[in-house]
Amino acid sequence: MTGWIVIAGLGPGNDALVTPEAQDALDQATDIVGYIPYVERVQPRDGLTLHPSDNRVELDRSRHALEMASQGKRVVVVSSGDPGVFAMAAAVLEAVEHGDPKWRDLDIRILPGITAMLAASAACGAPLGHDFCTINLSDNMKPWAIIEKRLQLAAQADFAMAFYNPRSKSRPEGFEKALALLQRECNDARPIIFARNVSRPDQTIKIVPLNEATPDMADMRTVVILGSSRTRIIARAGAPLVYTPRSIPE
Amino acid sequence: MTGWIVIAGLGPGNDALVTPEAQDALDQATDIVGYIPYVERVQPRDGLTLHPSDNRVELDRSRHALEMASQGKRVVVVSSGDPGVFAMAAAVLEAVEHGDPKWRDLDIRILPGITAMLAASAACGAPLGHDFCTINLSDNMKPWAIIEKRLQLAAQADFAMAFYNPRSKSRPEGFEKALALLQRECNDARPIIFARNVSRPDQTIKIVPLNEATPDMADMRTVVILGSSRTRIIARAGAPLVYTPRSIPE
Repeated sequence: MTGWIVIAGLGPGNDALVTPEAQDALDQATDIVGYIPYVERVQPRDGLTLHPSDNRVELDRSRHALEMASQGKRVVVVSSGDPGVFAMAAAVLEAVEHGDPKWRDLDIRILPGITAMLAASAACGAPLGHDFCTINLSDNMKPWAIIEKRLQLAAQADFAMAFYNPRSKSRPEGFEKALALLQRECNDARPIIFARNVSRPDQTIKIVPLNEATPDMADMRTVVILGSSRTRIIARAGAPLVYTPRSIPE
Repeated sequence: MTGWIVIAGLGPGNDALVTPEAQDALDQATDIVGYIPYVERVQPRDGLTLHPSDNRVELDRSRHALEMASQGKRVVVVSSGDPGVFAMAAAVLEAVEHGDPKWRDLDIRILPGITAMLAASAACGAPLGHDFCTINLSDNMKPWAIIEKRLQLAAQADFAMAFYNPRSKSRPEGFEKALALLQRECNDARPIIFARNVSRPDQTIKIVPLNEATPDMADMRTVVILGSSRTRIIARAGAPLVYTPRSIPE
């Protein structure tokens, strides 16, 4: 048996957002590796071994997956969302670069998925319909000063912004600081969207003016989207629609 | 019959990247509206009317789709990639905001898709594995000065960058200017990726150092990804892997 390793995105939670390409890889796999709740999304079957692991062991998990592939297994590393956006693809490649040289010769494929910001954007309209940026607000792996600098420059650029990992239980003060900075820099009532458990049955979408947003509106299950200065709200009988127009007049 | 309008993303071209959710909407539709090559991706069947239209008529197309939905049709507006990223969702919502008030009461849903930058990133590794921004380089609908300002600020923020619509036949000089600006601002040999016809059988991925990139490497079928200052290349016997590490040391 020739081994391979696929890093596949399962999308934000709804199985109707798993691509046929990712499903096909799951169907061919001998081994599934990933964070516990993502591995739980894979249907068990004969001949398939599940290897769930805890959070924050991304490099160990990557090495385990690479080692199994080099032994001839067909390994799928499952990610939530898209594996290339703050997920497992970079971790596996980090392990490849610094690990056993024979891992470089493996058949390594990365399969894209629906990342949370795209599902959140679709759930409320099209707030990312014009230029935008995507920032991981966790300071686990980078200095807080870099996050602040990026927020400031993104506000100056008038990007819409999508934020991942906005607020952990252990370090809730980060999002408070980020929100205060954005309220000061943007200084207006543009819409900010808190999309929690996006695409799941318990999805909630909260849309508030930036100057009225409070830190407790986000947690680690939330993706946050901040509009640009030009983002619009369409009021109607049902949930409002939020979008950023395609054009900026001369 | 109760009408509805769905704006669905068909992904970058490979049918294995169409989500089951989008496919389900196509299966239920009475009418498909969209740019000619995207409508051509939909399988004809009895009871389904196809309404292909030319490029640059996004608002007319949107009004047509909304009007049919208000007459009770089940209308899918098809986009390439994700409908919320430089595609049809913002156009339809623009038409809703400024159009017939009764359109606001329609059942309007947006279904996310695999946008080109995610497929391009997956095809070469994980260059968008850390903070990044996404910029439409076409100046059809915004002043060139705004594009330049955003590129400068994005380089200062050390974002990886994804560029859509980099180079049209009618205005090829834009990408030449953008590339010269980025080469000046970044002033290094970080990888830049030219992903053409991504996910299609004729996909090509070209990875070059930024300081050796030339404008002719891009056209309108290309999505361009520029690494951050920290983006790495893993050399190996096959195609190299490019990724942006998850962490920035203190």
